[in-house]
Amino acid sequence: MKVRRAERLIDMTRYFLEHPQTLVSLSVFASKYEAAKSSVSEDLTILNRALQNRGVGKLTTYPGAAGGVMFTTYMSKQNAQKLIDKLCEEAVKGDRVMPGGYVYFSDILGRPEILREIGKLIATEYSNKKVDAVLTVAVKGISLAQAVAEQLNVPFVIARQDGAVTDGATVSVNYLSKSSSEIGKIQVASRALPAGSHVLLVDDFIKGGGTMSGLVDLVHEIYCEVAGITVFGEGRYTGVRKIKEFTSLLHVETVTNDDDQLDLKITPGNILDKIY
Amino acid sequence: MKVRRAERLIDMTRYFLEHPQTLVSLSVFASKYEAAKSSVSEDLTILNRALQNRGVGKLTTYPGAAGGVMFTTYMSKQNAQKLIDKLCEEAVKGDRVMPGGYVYFSDILGRPEILREIGKLIATEYSNKKVDAVLTVAVKGISLAQAVAEQLNVPFVIARQDGAVTDGATVSVNYLSKSSSEIGKIQVASRALPAGSHVLLVDDFIKGGGTMSGLVDLVHEIYCEVAGITVFGEGRYTGVRKIKEFTSLLHVETVTNDDDQLDLKITPGNILDKIY
Repeated sequence: MKVRRAERLIDMTRYFLEHPQTLVSLSVFASKYEAAKSSVSEDLTILNRALQNRGVGKLTTYPGAAGGVMFTTYMSKQNAQKLIDKLCEEAVKGDRVMPGGYVYFSDILGRPEILREIGKLIATEYSNKKVDAVLTVAVKGISLAQAVAEQLNVPFVIARQDGAVTDGATVSVNYLSKSSSEIGKIQVASRALPAGSHVLLVDDFIKGGGTMSGLVDLVHEIYCEVAGITVFGEGRYTGVRKIKEFTSLLHVETVTNDDDQLDLKITPGNILDKIY
Repeated sequence: MKVRRAERLIDMTRYFLEHPQTLVSLSVFASKYEAAKSSVSEDLTILNRALQNRGVGKLTTYPGAAGGVMFTTYMSKQNAQKLIDKLCEEAVKGDRVMPGGYVYFSDILGRPEILREIGKLIATEYSNKKVDAVLTVAVKGISLAQAVAEQLNVPFVIARQDGAVTDGATVSVNYLSKSSSEIGKIQVASRALPAGSHVLLVDDFIKGGGTMSGLVDLVHEIYCEVAGITVFGEGRYTGVRKIKEFTSLLHVETVTNDDDQLDLKITPGNILDKIY
């Protein structure tokens, strides 16, 4: 069935948003909509302009027989700044400080509309880097890993502190959690990441960096490379972190207020330095 | 800045896909694009037709001063059937049967492009029901919960078998895992679900139903209601399941093949009966 321009634009928008980082040949669209390639090409120009005007992404055209067009999620600096400001606001709302100075963020990391934006921001940071998979550690990093993986259109993999009988053969490393001074073990299914993969590490929170350092060891243990490290919250830590290079969305500090209660002080992390 | 129809359609498509189940007043669009309400109204007619033609969703218009338009994810029966067929194919690929008859599905449940479609299918099943939140149990149900919550635009909450110090006060129940004959405990942060919420339960796999039955108890313990239960895989179970009403995407059976090895037999679950 021949499809008119308006409907083509609507369907292509949906297709690209759901298939980022996927090269599509113009002839696929042309045959899907029974349209001339020249019309599809005009559609793509309109679409690219609209996406860029809104600061939400861009289309890149690759010429040649094996070429096509690819959508990349791209959050503009302005939208990134707005998101971080909003997160700073949300993160101080409610009673988040737990005994021991731990901070409750599970509500924020369980809201799809916020996660999607966080995923876009982190995907933008890595839009020019090779990322084959996203790795995190159970439980609280998972929603973040999924949100980023969606925008990069790569699989995400979950390392665990306990073992799961359904994981089959696993690779494990020990790590020292400096903030709790305990030795832990994390493991991942051997089959989950092929050797040579470029792996982006994400987690909800970093303090001493012990767990993250364990994830880095795990990546090397399975002959993969670390493509980057990004966390939602970066806590204050007085010692020397084992992990030095990472980006964070928020700086999180617990401070004692005038009533002698613990309060949160939230400021933007360094991720905005990586968004242009 | 005045925005032309083509760009309006592109931006509205993006907006609706990212904000399902959200009522938007026509004047919001009219002022965002500096367009007449009548033009926006025409845009919405075009958009609704295109979405329905593709079997991906629908717009519903609510008249009156407090009215507006709402996008609902809706997977057509035909697309649902295609998805289940594809999952049946994927689920038998590779070496999935673990010692003890457990089955490895983490790769499928870690692929964003498959998860999105699964999320749409389950959201379609519940598109006419009241769902305030999605609840699952860590670890393997999480990606499913997030995928469904995205399409229903509600928060998702993670119950855990271990406790997390960052959860604060928790509510817990004991449950009997019939397939492993062990008594377990699951808990959820007390603050995570307000009393009276309609909670959709999802998990990656059901066998005896012990864990799911624990989740049901947990929902009642916090004065909430079960909106429904859906699992990715339904294993074969010879006893009487504690949970009788649920839908599944796949039936999973391990069978002994001619070489005396365990093989998988995958057939469609009953979810298709709920899609019209």
